Amino acid sequence: MIERYETEEMKRIWSEENRFRKWLEVELAVCEAWTEEGRIPREAMEQIRNKAAFDIRRISEIEATTHHDVIAFVSAVAEKIGPEGRYVHLGLTSSDVVDTAGSLLILEALEVLTRALRDFSGLVLEKARQYRHLPCVGRTHGIHGEPTTFGLKVLNWHYELQRDMERLDLARRHIAAGKISGAVGTYAHCPPHIEAKVCSSLGLQRADVSNQILQRDRHAEVLTAVAILGSTLERIATEIRHLQRTEVLEAAEPFSKGQKGSSAMPHKRNPILCERVCGMARLLRGYSIAAMENIALWHERDISHSSVERVAWPDAFHLAHYCVKTMSRIIGNLQVDAEKMGKNLELTKGLLFSQRVLLHLIDETQASREEAYSIVQENAMRCWAGEGHLKDLLAADERVIRFIDEASLEKLFDYGYYTRFVDEIFSRFENSGEVPQQND
Amino acid sequence: MIERYETEEMKRIWSEENRFRKWLEVELAVCEAWTEEGRIPREAMEQIRNKAAFDIRRISEIEATTHHDVIAFVSAVAEKIGPEGRYVHLGLTSSDVVDTAGSLLILEALEVLTRALRDFSGLVLEKARQYRHLPCVGRTHGIHGEPTTFGLKVLNWHYELQRDMERLDLARRHIAAGKISGAVGTYAHCPPHIEAKVCSSLGLQRADVSNQILQRDRHAEVLTAVAILGSTLERIATEIRHLQRTEVLEAAEPFSKGQKGSSAMPHKRNPILCERVCGMARLLRGYSIAAMENIALWHERDISHSSVERVAWPDAFHLAHYCVKTMSRIIGNLQVDAEKMGKNLELTKGLLFSQRVLLHLIDETQASREEAYSIVQENAMRCWAGEGHLKDLLAADERVIRFIDEASLEKLFDYGYYTRFVDEIFSRFENSGEVPQQND
Amino acid sequence: MIERYETEEMKRIWSEENRFRKWLEVELAVCEAWTEEGRIPREAMEQIRNKAAFDIRRISEIEATTHHDVIAFVSAVAEKIGPEGRYVHLGLTSSDVVDTAGSLLILEALEVLTRALRDFSGLVLEKARQYRHLPCVGRTHGIHGEPTTFGLKVLNWHYELQRDMERLDLARRHIAAGKISGAVGTYAHCPPHIEAKVCSSLGLQRADVSNQILQRDRHAEVLTAVAILGSTLERIATEIRHLQRTEVLEAAEPFSKGQKGSSAMPHKRNPILCERVCGMARLLRGYSIAAMENIALWHERDISHSSVERVAWPDAFHLAHYCVKTMSRIIGNLQVDAEKMGKNLELTKGLLFSQRVLLHLIDETQASREEAYSIVQENAMRCWAGEGHLKDLLAADERVIRFIDEASLEKLFDYGYYTRFVDEIFSRFENSGEVPQQND
Amino acid sequence: MIERYETEEMKRIWSEENRFRKWLEVELAVCEAWTEEGRIPREAMEQIRNKAAFDIRRISEIEATTHHDVIAFVSAVAEKIGPEGRYVHLGLTSSDVVDTAGSLLILEALEVLTRALRDFSGLVLEKARQYRHLPCVGRTHGIHGEPTTFGLKVLNWHYELQRDMERLDLARRHIAAGKISGAVGTYAHCPPHIEAKVCSSLGLQRADVSNQILQRDRHAEVLTAVAILGSTLERIATEIRHLQRTEVLEAAEPFSKGQKGSSAMPHKRNPILCERVCGMARLLRGYSIAAMENIALWHERDISHSSVERVAWPDAFHLAHYCVKTMSRIIGNLQVDAEKMGKNLELTKGLLFSQRVLLHLIDETQASREEAYSIVQENAMRCWAGEGHLKDLLAADERVIRFIDEASLEKLFDYGYYTRFVDEIFSRFENSGEVPQQND
Repeated sequence: MIERYETEEMKRIWSEENRFRKWLEVELAVCEAWTEEGRIPREAMEQIRNKAAFDIRRISEIEATTHHDVIAFVSAVAEKIGPEGRYVHLGLTSSDVVDTAGSLLILEALEVLTRALRDFSGLVLEKARQYRHLPCVGRTHGIHGEPTTFGLKVLNWHYELQRDMERLDLARRHIAAGKISGAVGTYAHCPPHIEAKVCSSLGLQRADVSNQILQRDRHAEVLTAVAILGSTLERIATEIRHLQRTEVLEAAEPFSKGQKGSSAMPHKRNPILCERVCGMARLLRGYSIAAMENIALWHERDISHSSVERVAWPDAFHLAHYCVKTMSRIIGNLQVDAEKMGKNLELTKGLLFSQRVLLHLIDETQASREEAYSIVQENAMRCWAGEGHLKDLLAADERVIRFIDEASLEKLFDYGYYTRFVDEIFSRFENSGEVPQQND
Repeated sequence: MIERYETEEMKRIWSEENRFRKWLEVELAVCEAWTEEGRIPREAMEQIRNKAAFDIRRISEIEATTHHDVIAFVSAVAEKIGPEGRYVHLGLTSSDVVDTAGSLLILEALEVLTRALRDFSGLVLEKARQYRHLPCVGRTHGIHGEPTTFGLKVLNWHYELQRDMERLDLARRHIAAGKISGAVGTYAHCPPHIEAKVCSSLGLQRADVSNQILQRDRHAEVLTAVAILGSTLERIATEIRHLQRTEVLEAAEPFSKGQKGSSAMPHKRNPILCERVCGMARLLRGYSIAAMENIALWHERDISHSSVERVAWPDAFHLAHYCVKTMSRIIGNLQVDAEKMGKNLELTKGLLFSQRVLLHLIDETQASREEAYSIVQENAMRCWAGEGHLKDLLAADERVIRFIDEASLEKLFDYGYYTRFVDEIFSRFENSGEVPQQND
Repeated sequence: MIERYETEEMKRIWSEENRFRKWLEVELAVCEAWTEEGRIPREAMEQIRNKAAFDIRRISEIEATTHHDVIAFVSAVAEKIGPEGRYVHLGLTSSDVVDTAGSLLILEALEVLTRALRDFSGLVLEKARQYRHLPCVGRTHGIHGEPTTFGLKVLNWHYELQRDMERLDLARRHIAAGKISGAVGTYAHCPPHIEAKVCSSLGLQRADVSNQILQRDRHAEVLTAVAILGSTLERIATEIRHLQRTEVLEAAEPFSKGQKGSSAMPHKRNPILCERVCGMARLLRGYSIAAMENIALWHERDISHSSVERVAWPDAFHLAHYCVKTMSRIIGNLQVDAEKMGKNLELTKGLLFSQRVLLHLIDETQASREEAYSIVQENAMRCWAGEGHLKDLLAADERVIRFIDEASLEKLFDYGYYTRFVDEIFSRFENSGEVPQQND
Repeated sequence: MIERYETEEMKRIWSEENRFRKWLEVELAVCEAWTEEGRIPREAMEQIRNKAAFDIRRISEIEATTHHDVIAFVSAVAEKIGPEGRYVHLGLTSSDVVDTAGSLLILEALEVLTRALRDFSGLVLEKARQYRHLPCVGRTHGIHGEPTTFGLKVLNWHYELQRDMERLDLARRHIAAGKISGAVGTYAHCPPHIEAKVCSSLGLQRADVSNQILQRDRHAEVLTAVAILGSTLERIATEIRHLQRTEVLEAAEPFSKGQKGSSAMPHKRNPILCERVCGMARLLRGYSIAAMENIALWHERDISHSSVERVAWPDAFHLAHYCVKTMSRIIGNLQVDAEKMGKNLELTKGLLFSQRVLLHLIDETQASREEAYSIVQENAMRCWAGEGHLKDLLAADERVIRFIDEASLEKLFDYGYYTRFVDEIFSRFENSGEVPQQND
């Protein structure tokens, strides 16, 4: 990933060094297991434990000849250890190390991402509560619909984020697996109990059956869950972009002091962070497609998935983490203009209450739904045409006023009516934001 | 979907009639709930219950004027009922019906798909057990690696299919939701307990918060799970295509009597079913992208997702179901050539045993891994060049024979050694294929 | 494609009957070529020419046994012809017919699509000219930027549509190819001059080299060009959706008499057609991915592309054609509110002129760009905060008024200044919309 | 892009430094144009020309405050120039610079990619000619079909690569455009002739109409052309992977001395380069989707495309260039085993000649196609079942031998017959590989 979009945490995780560190972790866990078996002498294990280390430059040097990164790594580690180095990688095939370590890397990345996401989701809930009763217009198709509250809008994001976390959690369970089953998955040179010990010591499940590798549906699931998360964030970012439009201006992403919106138009405050997130969501969807194409490998494996993964794993996690952090910054400092929300609610001069009037008419009159509908629609059209506030137009319509007196009509045009269940909705999230239980 | 790839079950589910049936189900559940509330008189409900029906042609007729399918539907149903028809759709917005019914449709489709998948997965397990001990070569990169058994290959598919079912199951839980919360999700004209009753009577969860619709991450999750399933099936199909190659010919998809492989080459038996499945997996990935793009709708909803869903939901389910059924037919009637598998195992004249020899050498000699490696590699290269069977070449190599006598060498070249843990692996799946518990 | 989104023209093209018709066209062209060669007797050809026909039901019947549609087709045609029927398909492999006919089908579909697109592009140009001088605000990031005209906005669409036609035209040239080169492309049973004659008589180029089929990069190019066209239409549709927002309302898609916007809110006029087009663009992108995955077929061909193409070709062309027709209807009847455009231009009280003021300041003063920028930005911020019209604020700012007197300031705030080059821009399109030359 | 997959040339092009260099190129071209206009004094221009430069660290410093890279860049350049620096960026909006420079960057990258591709395509043609008459089996569905030559297979790649170059060339023509039309495309602060001069001096076409930016269909076209190229390379790589299978082994990618195929199985030579290319093709398809989603920007532009492009442009070009270079290395050093090709041709014991026999039978007998087909199919099935060589079986079949004597039968089983048109096919490419004319 380009530096601009990297996050510190992901950079550490996806560094070459951390990859080798995870490889070493797996190699050492295997040595320990062999030692318990009596296959590696305890004193040799002592040496291995004390001296095992790697030097990235040395690995590169060897790889330049062997064209094989694991062999280069093993040789470099063995050199550091000395004679006992020959026990390293005993009975293993490269993928035992690479794939098991790959799961550890993805788990680290998921851990960082999920932590950020949990914080973000909590922040979103907090904001939702803060704006729980702030009235604003609800829009469908970009057109004013009915009143709602800004808090409800935000709570909806929180709820979707919960599902994102559930998806990531299932994906996590599927990726939290290791395999030390050899070249084609038969444990030919390394019996099953080594795998069991290694996986258990690394905090992984054993793949109940594998071939040379862990099957790539597991990894595709992670990247599709990440892509769906990206799309959730895109939804939130898109909402803010809409609200920040000059004509709407109900909310705006934070604008740092000193920041310049445009080299040409000094008054502009553009939702560039939100737009950036929207673009990143597109990239995430692209990676998910490549990850799904990775599933149908040939026979006991081919290595075509590898080039995809070297690029897409770090890039997808960098972008996803960057997006969550960016959205956290945005939501945490969101500028909300309650007054403008109020003005926008009044923009259509009572049209928002049309459905309520319609239902009231159906109740109070013997009119069919169709008839009532056309009375309301007719007045709505006149209101729309600028002939006046809907309430006044209805008050002047004999077909209406025959059944509903002015006082009752007045009462119908009340925002509070529309949001009377907001507290009930929020009550469903009273315990939300607490750390969700993880069932493995 | 084109007729050729439709399945009977999905055709029924995705028919216009069934869609309207589900809409009616939702409308009636709402009426019942209002009746319990006392909002609809019991006698009116009686009438509604008895007379509610729809006539597709009449709906089309009305839609031609209104350009709105739900209004057309409600009008058509109301006509059938008579005066009490005006209670239908009381307090609802179209999406309350369409989205809640949409969940019911997807659940029906998931039920059919999952049932087929469970059967298929069971069949795969059965086949795996049948070929548990049938030796065949394991290949990585298309190159012979080490011996394995055909049953292990197949068991690996079963295991992946289990994960597919788990993914579909979480997707199912997320889609098993309804919403009767009105135009922007505030319950303005239809209080929350109506939604609660309706959802409960329809077997759905209530969306804890919604806007005009259910959020589309739920639906995207379903279609990505389906796309990953497609990729799993593509993996299986690709394996069979490889095994059916003229040079390999270890297995073949069934070939019906009377079928002609080619208009030009009468001897050809082509894996066309498997190829068809591979193509379909591509389409499924395409639909999943569109489904993810559907997530970031505007404000309380826009309807851009609708054209995608009218096409992608039925098409994706038709194709996925067709694929599962096709793969079931293929696996159920798979032609397996044990003899050819045996021949192919011998193709590389002992090279498959190189890793075993290598490890034995490391054990028996004081040679470093590197030295042992180069001894084996050198002989392997000569074997590869056609100079003889690896065993014979090694037996003639002083550096080897010094440490390993011929009898011991002979023992190393034993297929059984490679597959000695097969039963242990299978034992992990003893209870597999039983109906998995569903935790909602 | 579902009936709702089919177009009459595409339905005809992608019907089973038309497919068989194209197959017959190819078969007959081959027979004629063989006749010229003396390989088929002239009298036999006479019979073939007169009697060749097909009956779809009979084809289905035969296919039920043979599981091979071309063999079924050839048998059915041969039956109609009688004894001379045995000359049909002479020396051919199925793909000679299917692929050559496939090009004819796609060409027909491209012809229909391009014709619609040319009309649409012309209509767009016409609208652009109509609104050439209608001032409206230009927005970047959804924020008001500088004045422009509505005609320029529309002209930009026209220009992009021209490029879409150029892309479709190159794709057309690449797909306008046939192959009658046999099972693996060697002309073993049907010499090259037969192919030459057939292709020439069908108006196709000969594939200079082929294997069993035409290579799928050709077809992928068509579907990516179609997907990019879909994205162009999505851009136009998205613009209209934005302009139709309640707060903006500068333009709206047509609303038919009798149409109901919402079952709940009778005043709503939603841009549902534009939203539908946006959804369809997503599907088109999905098909393009599948088409690209079709390229890497195995060896001289595998048939995995076929299931993709049976679905994606008709579906993509139906949707693309539907989108073009829908957008034509929208643009042809677009409701444009010039007055509202004027009001929106004034919404930011002179801020749109900030860049002009900035440049003028740089010219008139010795201030650096940075200094001038901060003077303008400061006043812009006050204007933004509601302290008054930018012109008045600047007039009261000593740092400004020292260099620019009020009259000069007044002159800077002139919309006409911003659009003074509009005619020049339009003059570049004077000959646009004429039928573009096609160079094959 | 990760270092491992970067190419030197692309690294230079996509470096931060080169980006700023292109920006400076555009800014200077604008200054020169203004100078010709008399707007910038000639002496000032002298200063600008002599002193204009940038220091990346200084730009970063300023950007840390302004959060706007172009403003930071302009300030940093102006600092270097001194007082005359205030003429830099005169009348421009950031996108004038960024987008025009973006086209220059993509053109540089396309130039590098196309040069590599032209070389590769030439190399492929050379290899095709080299193996023009080397017989090998043609396979469809992975099944042996009819004889062909290895050269024809390779020539087919060359032909597809020509089309790839044509696609890249049209994309190049569409991207070779600049725009200096200001904040919303009206030339408000910078008249059209400045744009004309700048574009002409930079070797670009002027965008006949633009808004703040160049429309993104141009860029999407580039990335889809690149993705289709990736899929072409994937097709070639897939073919080699198939040919390198242990059972087939007709060709193999080069294997460097010292390279180790597997840490576990020393005899293995895996087609890892080809597999790597296949993976990269998946990533390229993913980027193309994101590029297409970039098209539908809002109004006169939003910046959501930017994050996509910062990642996808360099990454796609790195990968595509890497793939072309890798495939060049592979094809340039391809190991071809003519002997094994010969053996594989004989694998099916005459079945490859079945179509020829079939056609001959139809000619020589009065049998219908159907009858002849079933005679051949029957014998083919017996041959397949191992009952003998097809020729011998046919010679023993009365229905055959009645019409075709043994000598004639013998003559039918001749590989040369199948490849008699190979020279004719190659003659169509006599002038191929010469530098294609570029029509702008």
